[in-house]
Amino acid sequence: MKNTLGNSVAVTLFGESHGAEIGAVIDGLAAGITVDEEYIAKKLTLRRPAGAISTARAEKDPFRIVSGVFNGKTTGTPICILIPNGDTKSKDYSETRFLPRPGHADYTAYKKYHGYEDYRGGGHFSGRITAALVAAGAIAEKALEAKGIAIGTHIKACAGVTDTEFTDIKKDITYLNDKVFAVLDEDTEDKMKRAIEAAAKDGDSVGGILESAVVGLPAGVGEPWFDSLESALSHGLFSIPAVKGVEFGEGFAFADMRGSKANDPFAICEGRVVTKTNHNGGINGGISNGMPLIIRCVVKPTPSIYKEQDTVDMKDGTERILQIQGRHDPAIVHRARVVADSVIALVLCDMLSLKYGTDFLGE
Amino acid sequence: MKNTLGNSVAVTLFGESHGAEIGAVIDGLAAGITVDEEYIAKKLTLRRPAGAISTARAEKDPFRIVSGVFNGKTTGTPICILIPNGDTKSKDYSETRFLPRPGHADYTAYKKYHGYEDYRGGGHFSGRITAALVAAGAIAEKALEAKGIAIGTHIKACAGVTDTEFTDIKKDITYLNDKVFAVLDEDTEDKMKRAIEAAAKDGDSVGGILESAVVGLPAGVGEPWFDSLESALSHGLFSIPAVKGVEFGEGFAFADMRGSKANDPFAICEGRVVTKTNHNGGINGGISNGMPLIIRCVVKPTPSIYKEQDTVDMKDGTERILQIQGRHDPAIVHRARVVADSVIALVLCDMLSLKYGTDFLGE
Amino acid sequence: MKNTLGNSVAVTLFGESHGAEIGAVIDGLAAGITVDEEYIAKKLTLRRPAGAISTARAEKDPFRIVSGVFNGKTTGTPICILIPNGDTKSKDYSETRFLPRPGHADYTAYKKYHGYEDYRGGGHFSGRITAALVAAGAIAEKALEAKGIAIGTHIKACAGVTDTEFTDIKKDITYLNDKVFAVLDEDTEDKMKRAIEAAAKDGDSVGGILESAVVGLPAGVGEPWFDSLESALSHGLFSIPAVKGVEFGEGFAFADMRGSKANDPFAICEGRVVTKTNHNGGINGGISNGMPLIIRCVVKPTPSIYKEQDTVDMKDGTERILQIQGRHDPAIVHRARVVADSVIALVLCDMLSLKYGTDFLGE
Amino acid sequence: MKNTLGNSVAVTLFGESHGAEIGAVIDGLAAGITVDEEYIAKKLTLRRPAGAISTARAEKDPFRIVSGVFNGKTTGTPICILIPNGDTKSKDYSETRFLPRPGHADYTAYKKYHGYEDYRGGGHFSGRITAALVAAGAIAEKALEAKGIAIGTHIKACAGVTDTEFTDIKKDITYLNDKVFAVLDEDTEDKMKRAIEAAAKDGDSVGGILESAVVGLPAGVGEPWFDSLESALSHGLFSIPAVKGVEFGEGFAFADMRGSKANDPFAICEGRVVTKTNHNGGINGGISNGMPLIIRCVVKPTPSIYKEQDTVDMKDGTERILQIQGRHDPAIVHRARVVADSVIALVLCDMLSLKYGTDFLGE
Repeated sequence: MKNTLGNSVAVTLFGESHGAEIGAVIDGLAAGITVDEEYIAKKLTLRRPAGAISTARAEKDPFRIVSGVFNGKTTGTPICILIPNGDTKSKDYSETRFLPRPGHADYTAYKKYHGYEDYRGGGHFSGRITAALVAAGAIAEKALEAKGIAIGTHIKACAGVTDTEFTDIKKDITYLNDKVFAVLDEDTEDKMKRAIEAAAKDGDSVGGILESAVVGLPAGVGEPWFDSLESALSHGLFSIPAVKGVEFGEGFAFADMRGSKANDPFAICEGRVVTKTNHNGGINGGISNGMPLIIRCVVKPTPSIYKEQDTVDMKDGTERILQIQGRHDPAIVHRARVVADSVIALVLCDMLSLKYGTDFLGE
Repeated sequence: MKNTLGNSVAVTLFGESHGAEIGAVIDGLAAGITVDEEYIAKKLTLRRPAGAISTARAEKDPFRIVSGVFNGKTTGTPICILIPNGDTKSKDYSETRFLPRPGHADYTAYKKYHGYEDYRGGGHFSGRITAALVAAGAIAEKALEAKGIAIGTHIKACAGVTDTEFTDIKKDITYLNDKVFAVLDEDTEDKMKRAIEAAAKDGDSVGGILESAVVGLPAGVGEPWFDSLESALSHGLFSIPAVKGVEFGEGFAFADMRGSKANDPFAICEGRVVTKTNHNGGINGGISNGMPLIIRCVVKPTPSIYKEQDTVDMKDGTERILQIQGRHDPAIVHRARVVADSVIALVLCDMLSLKYGTDFLGE
Repeated sequence: MKNTLGNSVAVTLFGESHGAEIGAVIDGLAAGITVDEEYIAKKLTLRRPAGAISTARAEKDPFRIVSGVFNGKTTGTPICILIPNGDTKSKDYSETRFLPRPGHADYTAYKKYHGYEDYRGGGHFSGRITAALVAAGAIAEKALEAKGIAIGTHIKACAGVTDTEFTDIKKDITYLNDKVFAVLDEDTEDKMKRAIEAAAKDGDSVGGILESAVVGLPAGVGEPWFDSLESALSHGLFSIPAVKGVEFGEGFAFADMRGSKANDPFAICEGRVVTKTNHNGGINGGISNGMPLIIRCVVKPTPSIYKEQDTVDMKDGTERILQIQGRHDPAIVHRARVVADSVIALVLCDMLSLKYGTDFLGE
Repeated sequence: MKNTLGNSVAVTLFGESHGAEIGAVIDGLAAGITVDEEYIAKKLTLRRPAGAISTARAEKDPFRIVSGVFNGKTTGTPICILIPNGDTKSKDYSETRFLPRPGHADYTAYKKYHGYEDYRGGGHFSGRITAALVAAGAIAEKALEAKGIAIGTHIKACAGVTDTEFTDIKKDITYLNDKVFAVLDEDTEDKMKRAIEAAAKDGDSVGGILESAVVGLPAGVGEPWFDSLESALSHGLFSIPAVKGVEFGEGFAFADMRGSKANDPFAICEGRVVTKTNHNGGINGGISNGMPLIIRCVVKPTPSIYKEQDTVDMKDGTERILQIQGRHDPAIVHRARVVADSVIALVLCDMLSLKYGTDFLGE
């Protein structure tokens, strides 16, 4: 599978940071799904850097749907979306070509591709590629929305500042999806931004935690071995650059809990089976139980910093000092949030299409 | 894929807790790998419950290799391993058939399989199935060992007790792989066991965190999108029953770090490129960098507890009280440890076979 | 995928001719499908050699369903079927180990598995393995039958003798599925058997053509690129040992037709869209059109013959003469017929589950 | 997988006949393969219609490689190739929208996609899409050529005219790959063209048989169950529009042969194991034996003809008469030939990469 995510609904990404265009092909989406180009544009805008806390590279992402959409609806055949790389500043890489940036994929790409990789601006490993993923995810989100399934993500923690908890999840999702900086508490926004700016001033960067919620997913989605809902979601989420941890429900906090606390007792609410608590984040035995999914990802600090760093010359094996130039984000967690939404949407479309058939999302 | 893990090397599990046999089919392993049946038996023993802190169900797991091994070596065709369920106590399920145990897959299985699931003892969702996974994993581990790749896991935390850190990873792995209760610090063992016993006395259970390390993996293994090494490993690990979080390197601790700390600077050591620190757990951009992999999973408390719990009758939709009977582990983290080893071994065999070809592991 | 066929419904085979057992794992079949063990036994009997025209190796195939079936119904989790190899005569292979039989997989297996293959009796390449496929296929056939889909195969040609054409396909299928030697015309049976016996007397073997029909498949099943219905079916059919050609509808006869003849004009019949002719064998653009599927496979003559043949010693590279001993079929086309049914049934279950969802076949 | 062919090397097609662009994404090709844009252009030219025997729609196919190629070499990350649809004549479909053309995919697409399909000019089912496949295949062919593997196809039969047999296959391949109308015998070309023109004059169309040969493929490629070399190749070939039969070696002629003739005896030639005949077309037991692959496909007559045909109105269920207008090929077998080459090349790249690893083709 490699550069493809999913089976019944499969998305393949292509492109490099400094190529003419990046893009995505989505195969397997049902025919008849309404494609909302404005919504795609909106999500792309949310992914784009903005203001002091983001890189100065501002691209307008004028995406183009090349195939698979006809009269505003999906045709059921592969959708190809192209996004031009408008703002690829020509730059001289001759000095740093063989000096891998710590924390980046430069060294591992070199080992994997034996020097044939497009090294300019991170090439195929660039966060830029997530724009194509977000465009694909936006179509998937709308397909889910039509089935009563909503996804939202907030920045739970960033640079030592913590956001409030979800309270009314459905309402919180609606609130978040209109926010540029996705926190539930307004005060948090200022504090986080200031903390990010403080790091930026030091030529440094910060990480954070994204918390996503999904409501409306029916019970019974997922597989025991090995395509558990957690497996499928984490598979996608760990492909987002800088994500180094994924947890569900209480996640790592389960380590200090006892079973009597961790188990979610069942009850009947309005004739439906529910759980009184949701420590398991809506998933038991790898399968959705009808409660909201709760998913957290940790995003490591942006590896591009302005401090001097130790590196090596991959060509001659000498130790060197690297000083990264150019435009870089002191944080990406606030931008990665729409990428998390997108991955979750695409994975859920895949699993729902597997379960209910390839026509389901278009019906 | 569903009940199959991997592509170039693919393992499929089958069986139910109360069926005659459980088993695994491993397809794609190279021809010529030595199959060490004693090692398989040893790993199965480590997975089995032992002593006061484990369930009284003690099975000897007299596995049988049905195919794919000839004259002590893999043939390159599918290996089927069968493990009889020797000790399946006949029990009357008529009272609890429709009362799902909180924290278990009973309810989700019912929703997914519409009541046709084999509900006895958790059926196909039972931790029992991991015996087949461990047998498969034992073959994979030996194949990796022959290539200089070693895997080991310790119980980093359990019931509020924390083990020491890895120090000399290669040596630590050797040490752990001969331990029944896998902690690095001897004092930790007693403390953890006492804490588990304390929970057991309360009719309760505890969770914990497993930390795995892999040494000897070459740089360049993994894919940018979407089969990152983290994606592939987490996909497998999240299939282990009770695992609710997976992280690499610093994992969730990255949230509070700055880039200048999180980045691992490069250096030359004995002519090889290394990183001075290993915050990224041996993976950059989804691809191995040649440093040890560091992987942590959280295992939630065993959902089977002896306290009364709220549940519902799935048939008539009434609220009920459930009192679980039978034999149950107050903790499974110490047993899940060999399952984690197995999953990691199988995933790495898959990715190495993809990269270096289907003959590689047998050469 | 390698030793696995299908995605939504996936069957994996394992075992060797002289191992203890062979078997199949079927993953993805819906929960709630009735498993008819007598029907499985019947199909296994049809696959077994019988009388003068078949090998003397007569196995009773007392299969055992190890998992995935509970109270006579599929559970939705993997079904493992085991078939013991009761009649594996111990034999001394020391003389012929390195002398590949012409037309067999001995040489290619040696090149692929580097000598680690289980060479006894063809090992994993043996036609024996198709017993497991037939058992799996029998479950699939019954699942399709419950949806109004029926599959039947006749020996269209064998040893220069040709059977009559399908006339009333639905009735013909019913007729064929109760026949041991599957021809539509009774006279054909005698003629074919005599022709096979004539070849057997010469120490030789014969091939033939199987023609399968499927009725009841709804229109709209299949994919444009690359999982066309023809692609999926041929993928499975070409795995049957000795199959060297697959065609649909007019097949190779299309080469001499003109479009005005080859096109199937549409008409309305009892309110439904039909085609007046069925030259395209029920498939247009890779997708079923609601008319009967017509599929033909050619089965080459059994490579095991009693004449002296030229071969080489794979170890020392010398030319040698080989005289095959033992029990062998002068024809397998009459036995391969149930294997064709099985493959078609499994592929259709896969494609229907993809299209209509994983619950569809159990509903 | 659906619109994707292959696993280790996977190609995904997208686009519609009347969209802005069609294209292909190739994932998994090794880094370091030289990409010869002139060769791609040459193959696209061979696929394009030419002269009296082809449709008047003449597109120059000015393809664009959007990603995955850097400094003239593959990077190892996905290659996206775009081909604009320059010559899509705007046309009024209102009259024929619901009148499916016999022999085409119009009706099955309508049933599959519920009317949401892009029906203009066959949409995603159009032969036009093969241009993207040919561009992808051209890169694959060059990768194989560098490994000493060559592929060539001739029109074995068309409209009742038959070409001569392969004699010196390696030389024949070279000869064919420079021919616009790929026959081995010069006289055949005139006869075939005249026969095609004769059909065209009648407003009719003809079919034909393509015979492909592959030399240089090492022994040991392919899988026993279910990814036999025949399975993998036929899977791809049956996706080519109008292909209705695929056979290997003697193919359907095996039906009338005896084993003593059908078996290919082994011999030693220049120190290598060879077979004296090649009735099995280079494949035994689903695995290559080192002899040339011989593959035949039948291409049915172009379904677009200028005669009146019976059809139905899919909307109101009435019977109707259809008279197709526009530009159409009286034969496509001479154009399909490069598509066959392409599919074979892509499938072999996939299987070689699986066997020898993802770096193999770039080494």
